[in-house]
Amino acid sequence: MQNLEELQTLVDQKIEGFCRKNGEANILQPVNYILSLGGKRVRPLLTLLAADLFSDNIEDAVYPAIAVEIFHNFTLMHDDIMDNAPLRRGKATVHEKWNRDVAILSGDAMLIQAYQLIIKTKESAVIDVMRIFNQTALDVCEGQQLDMDFQSRLDVTIDEYIEMIRLKTSVLLGGAMEIGATIAGASTADREAICRFAIDLGLSFQLWDDYLDAFGDASKTGKQVGGDILADKKTFLMIRAMEKADASDRDIMLQLQKEPIVPSEKIDIIKGLYQRLGVDEELKLEAERYYHQALAHLDSVAVPLERKNKIARVAQALHVRQF
Amino acid sequence: MQNLEELQTLVDQKIEGFCRKNGEANILQPVNYILSLGGKRVRPLLTLLAADLFSDNIEDAVYPAIAVEIFHNFTLMHDDIMDNAPLRRGKATVHEKWNRDVAILSGDAMLIQAYQLIIKTKESAVIDVMRIFNQTALDVCEGQQLDMDFQSRLDVTIDEYIEMIRLKTSVLLGGAMEIGATIAGASTADREAICRFAIDLGLSFQLWDDYLDAFGDASKTGKQVGGDILADKKTFLMIRAMEKADASDRDIMLQLQKEPIVPSEKIDIIKGLYQRLGVDEELKLEAERYYHQALAHLDSVAVPLERKNKIARVAQALHVRQF
Repeated sequence: MQNLEELQTLVDQKIEGFCRKNGEANILQPVNYILSLGGKRVRPLLTLLAADLFSDNIEDAVYPAIAVEIFHNFTLMHDDIMDNAPLRRGKATVHEKWNRDVAILSGDAMLIQAYQLIIKTKESAVIDVMRIFNQTALDVCEGQQLDMDFQSRLDVTIDEYIEMIRLKTSVLLGGAMEIGATIAGASTADREAICRFAIDLGLSFQLWDDYLDAFGDASKTGKQVGGDILADKKTFLMIRAMEKADASDRDIMLQLQKEPIVPSEKIDIIKGLYQRLGVDEELKLEAERYYHQALAHLDSVAVPLERKNKIARVAQALHVRQF
Repeated sequence: MQNLEELQTLVDQKIEGFCRKNGEANILQPVNYILSLGGKRVRPLLTLLAADLFSDNIEDAVYPAIAVEIFHNFTLMHDDIMDNAPLRRGKATVHEKWNRDVAILSGDAMLIQAYQLIIKTKESAVIDVMRIFNQTALDVCEGQQLDMDFQSRLDVTIDEYIEMIRLKTSVLLGGAMEIGATIAGASTADREAICRFAIDLGLSFQLWDDYLDAFGDASKTGKQVGGDILADKKTFLMIRAMEKADASDRDIMLQLQKEPIVPSEKIDIIKGLYQRLGVDEELKLEAERYYHQALAHLDSVAVPLERKNKIARVAQALHVRQF
């Protein structure tokens, strides 16, 4: 068993090696560029942690772990086109730095490259790993579709919203861990438990993300507070507030979406409304519920407690970042 | 061994079954739509023909064959965005019928679906088939990139052009056949020979396509004559004419690209130039050279002559369509 820092270093090294191998090929420059923008590399770490949970040899999980990160960055490249996003981690997005067509085509190449990496594991695991990866990838596309559909709808329910973030962000965490567990030879029950752990952790994380966007401390999150509010994004807070609001509150909210006012005023009014309606507290309860559900799934995995330490630490680190 | 018509029917049935299974899912509607536009389904047929060349049992090649067709249609969906094409086979393209984002996302889903199908073969072949498929897919992306790059360049050489069409269209024919041969257990030498056969056949086909666009009979090709000329497309004819032209002819060509004149006049002037410079005859010689090279590769495959009949018939059918 390797420690967390060693696993993280391994991920970084393998991604660097991947980029080096891509070299100067035209179509792969945007691939190297988006990977150079950084990120926490949580997903490949989860794959390695899941493998490490069930086996002392994680070697066969290394390239599939990188495949998951490449896939994740592929979705970012294409999502940024669809969202017309000018910036990604403070730098120009690929379609801004190059153009739309380059972002489409290099994204496609990146998805294919993920498949080149996913099969670099032991032969007996390839088909299982491919099945998990394919289903996860399709789910992520469906999640993005739902997210876009929601922007033009006023009647999105909380259940629909949870299903959307489950597909768009959580299933990839689940898939990342299930792939690691599968390569390490875990039982079907354990593979399912670790997948559910990651999905619930992801839901908790995403809900907290909604909270922090409105109520976080900009000096800690590094993001501008109120971005979702200014973009009229349908978050847990917004959807639940629309559900709970009376006619006059709902009018205020719809009015603010139509008429431009001073941004800071809009943020203050909406945040006040969220607090008055208590949807901020509701969100916290819901996020905590998913977090504890995640830990229960981790508990149920049939390996000695000490093997779970690293994963529990990562879960906690993702959890406490909020406060 | 099944006859050609039976193989074609099998392909059609499996594609219909695939669409039925996609059902009404939002993100898969454009997938079913683009497949409903038809096409000759040459690529999956080539996969089955290659399997049939080496084995009496082609069952394990059926889903990979469909995967190749799904992949091909994925490239059409994304290429149509990049080319701003309003029509595909006389019907609205996906980005026209829905919108750009749908065409990006459903295309992504379609590529993933190709991978779901490609692994539906015998386990011992999966990794080899995946390797061929991945490399082929990356080559096709690179070909599309080159094609786009060429539009803004005036110094494209014939060698560069041949390399572009090789990547953009021929390697997929080669990959389709190599996958079928691999599943059927062909030797490395035979896999390579059948792959080269398909690549050279593809080059011949593509060159004839350039010829027919300028000199074909609209009533037979079903396409408007001179489309490439009006779009100032860098075809074999155009590139070779620019190379052979003297200063005054080159001026005429560049002038016609800048100043709008009556379309039919532009077509007549350029066609006259092609004929005067003899690039039409050069193209024919080159296309025939690739065709005979293809047949030589087929000859070299180490199976009894009678097994090659069907493939030779398909090659000839693709060849004689020109006249």
